[in-house]
Amino acid sequence: MTIAETSKVYPNVRLGENVIIEDYCIVGLPFKDYSGEPTIIGDGAVIRSHSVIYAGNTIGANFQTGHKANLRELNNIGNDVSVGTLSIVEHHVSIGNGVRIHSQAFIPEFSILEDCCWIGPNVVLTNARFPQSPTAKAELKGPTIGIRARIGANSTILPGISVGSEALVGAGSVVTKPVSERTIVVGNPAKFVRNIHY
Amino acid sequence: MTIAETSKVYPNVRLGENVIIEDYCIVGLPFKDYSGEPTIIGDGAVIRSHSVIYAGNTIGANFQTGHKANLRELNNIGNDVSVGTLSIVEHHVSIGNGVRIHSQAFIPEFSILEDCCWIGPNVVLTNARFPQSPTAKAELKGPTIGIRARIGANSTILPGISVGSEALVGAGSVVTKPVSERTIVVGNPAKFVRNIHY
Amino acid sequence: MTIAETSKVYPNVRLGENVIIEDYCIVGLPFKDYSGEPTIIGDGAVIRSHSVIYAGNTIGANFQTGHKANLRELNNIGNDVSVGTLSIVEHHVSIGNGVRIHSQAFIPEFSILEDCCWIGPNVVLTNARFPQSPTAKAELKGPTIGIRARIGANSTILPGISVGSEALVGAGSVVTKPVSERTIVVGNPAKFVRNIHY
Repeated sequence: MTIAETSKVYPNVRLGENVIIEDYCIVGLPFKDYSGEPTIIGDGAVIRSHSVIYAGNTIGANFQTGHKANLRELNNIGNDVSVGTLSIVEHHVSIGNGVRIHSQAFIPEFSILEDCCWIGPNVVLTNARFPQSPTAKAELKGPTIGIRARIGANSTILPGISVGSEALVGAGSVVTKPVSERTIVVGNPAKFVRNIHY
Repeated sequence: MTIAETSKVYPNVRLGENVIIEDYCIVGLPFKDYSGEPTIIGDGAVIRSHSVIYAGNTIGANFQTGHKANLRELNNIGNDVSVGTLSIVEHHVSIGNGVRIHSQAFIPEFSILEDCCWIGPNVVLTNARFPQSPTAKAELKGPTIGIRARIGANSTILPGISVGSEALVGAGSVVTKPVSERTIVVGNPAKFVRNIHY
Repeated sequence: MTIAETSKVYPNVRLGENVIIEDYCIVGLPFKDYSGEPTIIGDGAVIRSHSVIYAGNTIGANFQTGHKANLRELNNIGNDVSVGTLSIVEHHVSIGNGVRIHSQAFIPEFSILEDCCWIGPNVVLTNARFPQSPTAKAELKGPTIGIRARIGANSTILPGISVGSEALVGAGSVVTKPVSERTIVVGNPAKFVRNIHY
């Protein structure tokens, strides 16, 4: 275990074997109404510099963050997951095994990222149909990104939308309708281009 | 008042009561040609970790930043404002009361954000019609976002555009024309969808 | 030379005259399979706070970063270049003289940025046509941005695309085809609008 002297690890953080925490990180930061939930990070994690991980996360083995990543509280994260440089994972997000979130992405609360999906750089998932409306907070619904689906760079996924397994969303798309599995969609709004054959 | 030992607060910063400054922050950083303008941050502010606030900002009560927020100099910011994680506010920006800037947003110089407007994650406002042209710097004009208007995630607002009060810009839009108050626009370029009724 | 005490500069970093490194930075960070490549940063550089620069970069005079910029290893960067706040330059990127990368941009590996081009805020260049496909890593091809070309805010440039010299890509565009020099393109997908006359 290697924890940089310049980093701050709060009590109630349980780190696996061979975890590396680089400089200027904060791990296990208590959140509003925190009531002692542990922060669990599995073997072999590498938390790169300037990253912030709130308390109450449960994270599997071989977790990696880029630099300046930000994870809020109470997420469930599988094995072999990476969260890229300058990306944000809000709270109550479910992330399967082998998921890769690239750089500068935004994953809001209640998103579901299934196994081995890929989130490109600057991708933005959303969870509020009418932000700031009186019922917005009660109606938050994150997208579901299916197994091995790939969301191209700088795409936007509307609230509650499902992207099917192995689907491909082209770069710069705005996805307003569900995407069927093994299909390619592109554009604003994103439209069906073709099926993916193997 | 709680200022983390790892943070750096410059002289000429006036903090209100019960201000919290988390780790690895810089507050009151002198800018080019700085001539002693004070940095004023009102009661109850929470400046989250790794944030940078330049000198010469005047900020009201209950200000909040997310982590790694970045504010340049000489902005006027009202009460009850939040600037989200990894967001940028450049200089000479006017921000009213109750404004919420979500995560990873970009607010350039000379933007005007009126009371209670909402800027979604990864939203980009712009202020230069012809970047790098000889007259670009002299002609900078930021957008005006009206009272309670909401700019959906990952939208782009062209220079000098006004978004009317209580309007809603759908996620992923590119707004090239003024938006009337209480209307919904979406798309690239953004087009009128419907009026908002109450 | 001014290096903040809170920053970390690794051995094998060669700094020119009058270099400033602000707080909480990391410069010369060894990468995977690092074998001693020096990090060279020319005279007059200003590395702003919370920035991370990996080892093996060769950077000319008058380099500037904004805050929290992130540069991976083995890039070649000319004179008078700036990389804005919260922007990312991955590895094996070629950057000419006088290039300005604005804030929150993403420049992936194998991109080529020719002299004096301008990359707007939140611009995303891409380099993989089919992310996560078995051949994706072998086929990575970054865009080439020509001399004095300007890429408007929040645009997305598809892999391997060339943007001609002095071209202008409008804000929020998704560029899927090569752009001829001295032309303006806008939209998703970006389409020809007009030639630029002088």
